[in-house]
Amino acid sequence: MAERSHLLGLDVGGTKIAAVVADGSGEILAKIRRPTPAALGPDGIVAEMTDMLAEVAATVSIAPLDAAALGVSFGGPYDPVRGVVRDIPNLPDWGGVPLYALLADALPGVGLAIDNDANAAALAEWRFGAGQGADHMLYLTMGTGIGGGIVSEGRLYRGLRNAGGEVGHTVLVPDGAECGCGHRGCLEAYASGPAIARRAIEKIEAGEGDAFRAVLRDAGVALPDLRAEQIVEAARDGVKFAMDHLAETAFYMGWGIANAVSILAPEVVVLGTVATAAGDMFMEPLRRHVVDMAMPGVGEATRVEPAGLGDLVGDYAAIALAADVLGS
Amino acid sequence: MAERSHLLGLDVGGTKIAAVVADGSGEILAKIRRPTPAALGPDGIVAEMTDMLAEVAATVSIAPLDAAALGVSFGGPYDPVRGVVRDIPNLPDWGGVPLYALLADALPGVGLAIDNDANAAALAEWRFGAGQGADHMLYLTMGTGIGGGIVSEGRLYRGLRNAGGEVGHTVLVPDGAECGCGHRGCLEAYASGPAIARRAIEKIEAGEGDAFRAVLRDAGVALPDLRAEQIVEAARDGVKFAMDHLAETAFYMGWGIANAVSILAPEVVVLGTVATAAGDMFMEPLRRHVVDMAMPGVGEATRVEPAGLGDLVGDYAAIALAADVLGS
Repeated sequence: MAERSHLLGLDVGGTKIAAVVADGSGEILAKIRRPTPAALGPDGIVAEMTDMLAEVAATVSIAPLDAAALGVSFGGPYDPVRGVVRDIPNLPDWGGVPLYALLADALPGVGLAIDNDANAAALAEWRFGAGQGADHMLYLTMGTGIGGGIVSEGRLYRGLRNAGGEVGHTVLVPDGAECGCGHRGCLEAYASGPAIARRAIEKIEAGEGDAFRAVLRDAGVALPDLRAEQIVEAARDGVKFAMDHLAETAFYMGWGIANAVSILAPEVVVLGTVATAAGDMFMEPLRRHVVDMAMPGVGEATRVEPAGLGDLVGDYAAIALAADVLGS
Repeated sequence: MAERSHLLGLDVGGTKIAAVVADGSGEILAKIRRPTPAALGPDGIVAEMTDMLAEVAATVSIAPLDAAALGVSFGGPYDPVRGVVRDIPNLPDWGGVPLYALLADALPGVGLAIDNDANAAALAEWRFGAGQGADHMLYLTMGTGIGGGIVSEGRLYRGLRNAGGEVGHTVLVPDGAECGCGHRGCLEAYASGPAIARRAIEKIEAGEGDAFRAVLRDAGVALPDLRAEQIVEAARDGVKFAMDHLAETAFYMGWGIANAVSILAPEVVVLGTVATAAGDMFMEPLRRHVVDMAMPGVGEATRVEPAGLGDLVGDYAAIALAADVLGS
């Protein structure tokens, strides 16, 4: 039998599942996607996963059992010590599901690693993206929420209950904006995608941003449907309200990052989603705020970079976990 | 020759040096102290260190060369990768001194570990004090500054340039009180010993705290000489101004700790100095603020405890480094 070298990956989200196969170096050779069959419950979804693995493995003429390892990037809270999914308010069926045991039973002899998507993406950016070679890296998304993962000396820093890296829930303003977590004034309540839109809507409702409002009217966007992407686009087009709003967002994000930098002293902070889309217009003021607010000497030494993997981060996240379990 | 088992330690501060000897389990057997001979410069101080090690080792009838390891807790910034002392504004002679090489040359064959005092104290609380057995621990002092050290899975988390753990320089109020680091609004500018005193003085000068002012007058303490310890004492005696001031300090400290807890998800946060002196009156509100502001689920699971080693922390800090180099 040939030496096992292929890596399999599953990127499991609330609406879709992707299965990928990569060679031993992590280069992705094939990918398939299907909607997450939420109605089937955990057992049905695990059956769908193994079916998808068989299909994607067949594209390189192997069976899943011939792969060296499988990595699973799971879009929800996962306890890597017990190997079970944690209680999730909006997915009650999944609480306590022994995902590790179910997949290990399905694929005996194949290395297996499962982690939440933020940790997996952090590992991917460290192994394949903007954090390559860094001794200490902090990865932050700026999407629906502000998720985070910490890679230190080549390993994920997990903390108690795999809960580390929640920079999005550090508090900037104790009596500030309500956050989805139930607290007030978290970074996420100012700089996540929906929070960026909400802050802009509040300003417009208070009478600011006439020119931006005209842009939205021309584009047929109703104010309640405003999204961070549209603000980024208007800022790129030179609309002052949008530019100022993005600058204010860079202040909040820079403040939150600065505090994380003082605590973690990372070599590099890698930012995904909104930061990647907005580019230098956002990153340059943000870097200045990090230097102005992080521990002197550390802020200047820490690089703050947009993510390197873009839309492929989920695929690489799963493959990075698979590579990690092999220690390669 | 008997197997080497004794551990030696040096606790090097700006005004005094302590040398200790411990048995292999870390129990301290003897200790000597001398003033730091600052005028002699680094070479003279290193000579003093080796002389002190000979003296303290003699109390257990060994020579320093017979010890298994030496740990040095250094009261200043130290670069463990290069083994040199960093530039220190107030001790210009020490910048670039190759402390590791100097001591390794003096004690060939003896294991050697050197680190800054905050990291060493963190390791001591993890090995011998309130953090024993924790997978992830954050240690914070509340003395002249707010120093910090992180122990993760039995090892110090250092970060870039050994600069991690600077929770004291996370920014709570961007346009707030001036901090010694040159920035504004750092936690240290609200909750270090001198900051606790400064905030009280500002309130008293604004006309608050008549009863407390009377207490100070009776004790012969001039307002500019007020120290955090005197506020803690008055709070213990039930003086309302001092109690309220300590409660406000617990809010700032709890806020800063909550943010660190969201990022690090430590099993336990160990607090030294002011927190230890103030006891439950300070720790209980502080714990509530941590739960109110840290990532939900994590704040509740993190213990926040006063330090366990008290005034002996410096001695154990040095010995913990020595034990660490042996991997014992």
